[in-house]
Amino acid sequence: MKYLSGQSQQLPGNRTSMSAYQAQHFLYETADGVATITLSRPERKNPLTFESYAELRELFRALAYASDVKAIVVTGAGENFCSGGDVHEIIGPLTKLDMPGLLAFTRMTGDVVKAMRACPQPVIAAVDGICAGAGAILALSSDIRVGTARSKTAFLFTRVGLAGCDMGACALLPRVIGQGRAADLLYSGRAMSGEEGERWGFFNRLSSPEQVLADAQAYARDLADGPSFAHGMTKKMLQQEWNMGVDEAIEAEAQAQAICMMTNDFHRAYHAFAGKQKPVFEGD
Amino acid sequence: MKYLSGQSQQLPGNRTSMSAYQAQHFLYETADGVATITLSRPERKNPLTFESYAELRELFRALAYASDVKAIVVTGAGENFCSGGDVHEIIGPLTKLDMPGLLAFTRMTGDVVKAMRACPQPVIAAVDGICAGAGAILALSSDIRVGTARSKTAFLFTRVGLAGCDMGACALLPRVIGQGRAADLLYSGRAMSGEEGERWGFFNRLSSPEQVLADAQAYARDLADGPSFAHGMTKKMLQQEWNMGVDEAIEAEAQAQAICMMTNDFHRAYHAFAGKQKPVFEGD
Amino acid sequence: MKYLSGQSQQLPGNRTSMSAYQAQHFLYETADGVATITLSRPERKNPLTFESYAELRELFRALAYASDVKAIVVTGAGENFCSGGDVHEIIGPLTKLDMPGLLAFTRMTGDVVKAMRACPQPVIAAVDGICAGAGAILALSSDIRVGTARSKTAFLFTRVGLAGCDMGACALLPRVIGQGRAADLLYSGRAMSGEEGERWGFFNRLSSPEQVLADAQAYARDLADGPSFAHGMTKKMLQQEWNMGVDEAIEAEAQAQAICMMTNDFHRAYHAFAGKQKPVFEGD
Repeated sequence: MKYLSGQSQQLPGNRTSMSAYQAQHFLYETADGVATITLSRPERKNPLTFESYAELRELFRALAYASDVKAIVVTGAGENFCSGGDVHEIIGPLTKLDMPGLLAFTRMTGDVVKAMRACPQPVIAAVDGICAGAGAILALSSDIRVGTARSKTAFLFTRVGLAGCDMGACALLPRVIGQGRAADLLYSGRAMSGEEGERWGFFNRLSSPEQVLADAQAYARDLADGPSFAHGMTKKMLQQEWNMGVDEAIEAEAQAQAICMMTNDFHRAYHAFAGKQKPVFEGD
Repeated sequence: MKYLSGQSQQLPGNRTSMSAYQAQHFLYETADGVATITLSRPERKNPLTFESYAELRELFRALAYASDVKAIVVTGAGENFCSGGDVHEIIGPLTKLDMPGLLAFTRMTGDVVKAMRACPQPVIAAVDGICAGAGAILALSSDIRVGTARSKTAFLFTRVGLAGCDMGACALLPRVIGQGRAADLLYSGRAMSGEEGERWGFFNRLSSPEQVLADAQAYARDLADGPSFAHGMTKKMLQQEWNMGVDEAIEAEAQAQAICMMTNDFHRAYHAFAGKQKPVFEGD
Repeated sequence: MKYLSGQSQQLPGNRTSMSAYQAQHFLYETADGVATITLSRPERKNPLTFESYAELRELFRALAYASDVKAIVVTGAGENFCSGGDVHEIIGPLTKLDMPGLLAFTRMTGDVVKAMRACPQPVIAAVDGICAGAGAILALSSDIRVGTARSKTAFLFTRVGLAGCDMGACALLPRVIGQGRAADLLYSGRAMSGEEGERWGFFNRLSSPEQVLADAQAYARDLADGPSFAHGMTKKMLQQEWNMGVDEAIEAEAQAQAICMMTNDFHRAYHAFAGKQKPVFEGD
């Protein structure tokens, strides 16, 4: 774990602390149990590079064990979310790779999504301005999306001669906005407006450009203050039941929820309600 | 079948009559082939109890064989649908159970959903007021939902320290309102308004509080007057194809529809249309 | 291949030309890489017949190999899309068939959908007026749908005593408009208005009756001018990932996109962008 050596602290129960992590290719900060990842090359609309893909992959994998991060916000600096893979820094070098090299690249980008879906913390994207290509996938791979009216989300792989099937888009996007709308965006590469995104269920809500990050962080803090072990189970089961039959999903949830009923947070909630108080959750 | 002994009448072809059924923990009545189940402790907003869960499970299992019930309406008395599992009657006792006991409970509640999805009759929920927790799941597990503008539907398991994965919610809700909106409701536990519910596809339509039950019953009666064997096949295949590939689903439907083409209702329809008359279906 | 003998020309790499194809039971024409199929018995609102089903099946199967057709438009003549299977020409004869005969029929109609989903070209439906029964399925089986406000789309199998599970409807429709809305249309057989269709994600956009075909053809031409090999991969993966887990879908896309990165179109795009020019795609 190149990016993490010496920065994480091993705790019992395979837990670590990630509050001291120093990011190299983007900004990372934690506050009140919420980690905020900010893509930060605003002069280029925050493109992804080979290095930032790899660091994102390692970071989300490490966050899976972080007991002091309960929710994650992903955003971009300077009025744009992310412009995706840069033409010069990514596309150009890719044209020179052989097949094993290409597959290593597409698996690396896919591993970022796998790691985002595998960590137990809900991921909330705060999206303003340009949200394109692999950037659109980062938003799509989040659990919750807060956008702005002026945001432009484009799955524009087709514009560079590629297919819409990138980093899981053909699986994820249809489940979020419907199969027909997903096909339109993936074939055409056209931008979805903020208003369309809200109407179609891509964005959970729209905020003003000034408020979008604060709103995403407030949502994240609410979740961080909640029963975070249970939130992690919700996230796990949303993924786990993706292609199960209904009856199998119901049995899977019977087991998962029985586990949650063994947590202290469930008992805390009962005693608080019985005493007509607001429960205070601790995530265990 | 504790609740059904002596109340159902065995008929040929594994059919029974359920018109004389006397419910113990809610109201049950049948008219014109439509059974209406009314949760009926309005002073507590119709909470579920260990007993009502068990009776619902047994009732829906029995309805699978009922030849005199063609459609089912589920509703709540007194301007609310259902407040879910009661804090004192359900949550408290659960905190004292061991793991086998907890799993027995979560499997019982899941079995209610399995039984609702397995009976051939379309289930139509008439939802006004509070529709919360396991109550929201009863609405979600129905085939059709009629709501009111003032209805509040909340998957509020998180509020008692539990996960959103309860009774199949992580499988069912994303397919009804989309993955992103489902994640928002399941993580936050916030209430979905009637207007949101209609806009997102949770409610098939909104009615006034005075009309919502009548509208649900009118819809149910239309279905009961239709080709009910075929409706049962529609319901079965919506469930059966949940996680099939497209080609396998098409073959499954070729077989299922060929079975329906052998029914008398199909022949009745043809002869009626050929004679320029309205077909009268009998459900066989 | 009864309909195709002598009309297609075998080219290297299992490719054929389909520009000279002469349709027998509908209209077929190609222009600029776009094939337009027009159901053309306007005096009966363009019903399907045993012959037109069979020819559609064979045509879409043949188009899978056509290197000179890059996108396909399906439409109907005379202000209606398609009225589905005719009562006298289809329903009547079906009532006289035995089970093997019925299954042969339902498999034939299902094979039309399988062939539409299996050919690499995106299929765009231009829908005005009546779009009913098997006609509604043809629209549903397309990748993109352009409708009109006055269009009426009805999955009215229930009206002839049959189930909603026809030609894949119970698999496809829930993924396009959501499980609850699909259930409503399939159980009731009621018509979805153009406005509902757009709001629910069935129609990608609404056009005027005068413009709907031209708009669909313009969309098709844009796709035909694009990286059509990659478009075919997008279509393949939308189908392929239908019931995969998320992680498996991501690996599948890593492989599929690596294949696309080996195409000339990807290199063309890079060189065009590097030279600040608009890329010209050739589909290889």
